[in-house]
Amino acid sequence: MVGFAAVVIRRQQFLIRCLGGYNSNISSKNFSNKTIKMQSLVSGGAPSLEIDAISILRSITPSLDNSRHKGQAGKIAVVGGCREYTGAPYFAAISALKIGADLSHVFCTKDAAAVIKSYSPELIVHPILEESYSVRDEDKKSVSVKVIEEVDKWMERFDCLVIGPGLGRDPFLLDCVSDIMMHAKKSNVPMVIDGDGLFLVTNRLELVSGYPFAVLTPNINEYKRLVRKVLQCEVNDHDGTQQLLSLAKGIGGVTILRKGGSDFISNGETVSAVNAFGSPRRCGGQGDILSGSVAVFISWARQHAAEEEPKMSPTVLGCVAGSVLLRKAASHAFESKGRSTLTTDIIEHLGRSLEEFCPVSRY
Amino acid sequence: MVGFAAVVIRRQQFLIRCLGGYNSNISSKNFSNKTIKMQSLVSGGAPSLEIDAISILRSITPSLDNSRHKGQAGKIAVVGGCREYTGAPYFAAISALKIGADLSHVFCTKDAAAVIKSYSPELIVHPILEESYSVRDEDKKSVSVKVIEEVDKWMERFDCLVIGPGLGRDPFLLDCVSDIMMHAKKSNVPMVIDGDGLFLVTNRLELVSGYPFAVLTPNINEYKRLVRKVLQCEVNDHDGTQQLLSLAKGIGGVTILRKGGSDFISNGETVSAVNAFGSPRRCGGQGDILSGSVAVFISWARQHAAEEEPKMSPTVLGCVAGSVLLRKAASHAFESKGRSTLTTDIIEHLGRSLEEFCPVSRY
Repeated sequence: MVGFAAVVIRRQQFLIRCLGGYNSNISSKNFSNKTIKMQSLVSGGAPSLEIDAISILRSITPSLDNSRHKGQAGKIAVVGGCREYTGAPYFAAISALKIGADLSHVFCTKDAAAVIKSYSPELIVHPILEESYSVRDEDKKSVSVKVIEEVDKWMERFDCLVIGPGLGRDPFLLDCVSDIMMHAKKSNVPMVIDGDGLFLVTNRLELVSGYPFAVLTPNINEYKRLVRKVLQCEVNDHDGTQQLLSLAKGIGGVTILRKGGSDFISNGETVSAVNAFGSPRRCGGQGDILSGSVAVFISWARQHAAEEEPKMSPTVLGCVAGSVLLRKAASHAFESKGRSTLTTDIIEHLGRSLEEFCPVSRY
Repeated sequence: MVGFAAVVIRRQQFLIRCLGGYNSNISSKNFSNKTIKMQSLVSGGAPSLEIDAISILRSITPSLDNSRHKGQAGKIAVVGGCREYTGAPYFAAISALKIGADLSHVFCTKDAAAVIKSYSPELIVHPILEESYSVRDEDKKSVSVKVIEEVDKWMERFDCLVIGPGLGRDPFLLDCVSDIMMHAKKSNVPMVIDGDGLFLVTNRLELVSGYPFAVLTPNINEYKRLVRKVLQCEVNDHDGTQQLLSLAKGIGGVTILRKGGSDFISNGETVSAVNAFGSPRRCGGQGDILSGSVAVFISWARQHAAEEEPKMSPTVLGCVAGSVLLRKAASHAFESKGRSTLTTDIIEHLGRSLEEFCPVSRY
């Protein structure tokens, strides 16, 4: 327990330090002027929202050297994968490794586990979630306690969770995932929430509201449902920037990455846009690459923030870097495969794309 | 039974012959002077611990010719693979084959077996281990007897076991694996112990203590736990060589390969370092490649020792060769894939790397 408490305290101290850099509600420091200079746009409407995403990616991507040991480049866990869906959690988890994370876990149902394991021996897959059809009502409480116990064994080791790829919508499973999210918050572990995780969160905003290390990555429909739920209105693209700011603020300053032809990112204080690169191919699974990538970049941005005073929130930096990397990889894959480009083709280009932005020294 | 007894006697004779070359407690011969010359470092602190690892690898790697038959180049078995972990035993077992072993077995749980089989048709996978959740208390004794019977059918055929990749920490499963280790010792089968096998051994040192064919391959954290348990102190990197010697001596002369930026190897008499090559990528799974490789090289070193008087312990030679080969393959994989290098990429470079050190003649 002493070790556990020490880890929680370290995480809390780190949280306070990070937030000091960009959230005036928590620290007396206010870096919003720096943010304006760096970003070329803030709430209030600078002329362009475009951000120098490649420079941000470069600034947070760690150098590699022989003194590092396993785990220091990132330990990611994906919570997702059920009887119906197995591809999505695999895409998120393998993308994290291909970018440079050291370890990538998946927490899924038993049905999904064998299949996800068979996609790649590189992943650590925990078959611990249960869907209603496999649990009797009288066993639900004990099963749910067991699920949390299993995840808690690992929680403190993870640098970021990805909640939602291929999660499905089974009510009992979503209840267990809600518990996991509450435990992650207590341990200050960042969470990237996508897919069915957004369905869960839209119905239970308290799971993320006010948590500065929550990132939501909605596509057009998921964004629509969030806007309706939080702002009680329809999406208004004439004043999209302001609405995105209001939405992020409305959920207590979580970071939102609104996916589309351009990606827009806001934590309720600033809005950034990433337009570069991209592909016209819209095959399913690209959102899973994004969520896994953002998780790694958030881990790196937090490591970077611990070494150097952060100019922007690590969650915003992570979203910007993840967005531009996916767009670059998708453009390379499309050049190579055209209409037949699939998500696995894009994943195969993650390494080369990151290398173009951030070459590593060979010796 | 006659055949079995003959095999045991041959192994014992062989053991005595091998040990004669490097362990003065067992034989009156003492080759420690030769060891000093060859290694450029010994207990007591020669200026450099660096060893000519490539020459060692060359000296023990057998030539290939048409007179050999299946099995002579090595029969390896990995004991590992449970509900949670399937990648690690696969990496260890396939690496053994990629280096040149003829047969590679995996002993794992039923849950893991189908998945490991699906990774590759090259492996022989035995679904015989059980975890507590699948066995009633009253059946544990009979199940445990059955597990040992199954492994014993094969034990005498194996040149080396790898204990631990993806083993997990289920108490019943670990009890069964303890039994397997005791039987392996009786049959003088060498064992490379990694991962959760090190967790087991750290808590039950008697499983390896004094067994000259035991090799432990701890990473930074596993090493820390071993030092605390055996030497009752913290890791001291100012006098790391002496501490490694004391640790190996403290466990009765087992061989320890301490993994890190440089790998250090000691059997309590000498310390060798392998610094050459390597990669800054620290993705999980590289330790599994190492354990599978060391197992093959130990088999070869023992074959070589049977033909020619050994200058160093086969376990030390095996560790040195396994270390330099992994480091070479990792450096090639990193040259090719950079940050996105994964364990499977490194495995794909094992063959080419060995070929560079030890070219075979084509005809």
